[in-house]
Amino acid sequence: MDFKVRAALKEDCKEISRMILELAVYENMPDQVKISHKELERDGFCQNPFFECLVAEVPEEHKSKEGFTIVGYALYFYTYSTWKGRSVYLEDLYVMPEFRGRGIGKGLLSKVAEVGKKKQCVRLQLSVLDWNTPTRDFYAAKGALDLTASEGWHFIRFDGPNLDNLANEAPKD
Amino acid sequence: MDFKVRAALKEDCKEISRMILELAVYENMPDQVKISHKELERDGFCQNPFFECLVAEVPEEHKSKEGFTIVGYALYFYTYSTWKGRSVYLEDLYVMPEFRGRGIGKGLLSKVAEVGKKKQCVRLQLSVLDWNTPTRDFYAAKGALDLTASEGWHFIRFDGPNLDNLANEAPKD
Repeated sequence: MDFKVRAALKEDCKEISRMILELAVYENMPDQVKISHKELERDGFCQNPFFECLVAEVPEEHKSKEGFTIVGYALYFYTYSTWKGRSVYLEDLYVMPEFRGRGIGKGLLSKVAEVGKKKQCVRLQLSVLDWNTPTRDFYAAKGALDLTASEGWHFIRFDGPNLDNLANEAPKD
Repeated sequence: MDFKVRAALKEDCKEISRMILELAVYENMPDQVKISHKELERDGFCQNPFFECLVAEVPEEHKSKEGFTIVGYALYFYTYSTWKGRSVYLEDLYVMPEFRGRGIGKGLLSKVAEVGKKKQCVRLQLSVLDWNTPTRDFYAAKGALDLTASEGWHFIRFDGPNLDNLANEAPKD
């Protein structure tokens, strides 16, 4: 199928927000989504953006049942390794169910890799849940390493009151 | 002990680079460090920096055996959750062995949390190796969640030829 991958514009944030919610519904956690297109517009289209985003677009004649032409997205940002330097991290990769199996997800992923390489990134990283075998297989088939399995990396988070407590204990200037 | 935590300056990159190597030696992987202070200066002190860094400094009279007054660092960057928004990711936290046990590591960590909160970050995240029990305990004692243990998140990486292959397959504009 004919599709185009392009950098998201600020005007695309409503569509991206719609797909973020679709992805959360697929994961059975729609109530976890606390941000809307307004935060996406603020955080992704400011002077030092917190993320960048690509969208996949199909021609009008192939629009979705509901009339959407933006049918997938890849949201990513830049990270840094003190051993290897610049890296790119893929936070979300999503293609609407009725458009799957046509290479759109692969197209988005490859484009993120290309954008990263242009910025001299030496790694493309992401996280997947262990029960999500289709997704893990998708990445493994393309040569990705599972560093949790091979090296034992654990992903750690502070949030809510734990984060507040930490911040409140910061040494004074 | 008297110490100060402050934002790193470009001039601190040689000291940060020295400590990055010390940390890699501790982890038995000094040959893995491919970047020097030059890359740190370029990537951390440009218009859209790839990271930010804090350093811990002791007064001249408490300098290390080798004469160093910068004795620890915390290197971090901003990430993004499509559910919750802005987050901060702690890539490295290091205190020179002879200065441990004096609250410097905790001071650096808390300061990163404070900096993150000021930028409206709702999460502070990081990764640890599963064999590194002292470090895992350090974070757990401060309330951090281990998302690999509790939710099954795996950390995935493309690099080297796998990343090149992906990038080369990107759809053309």
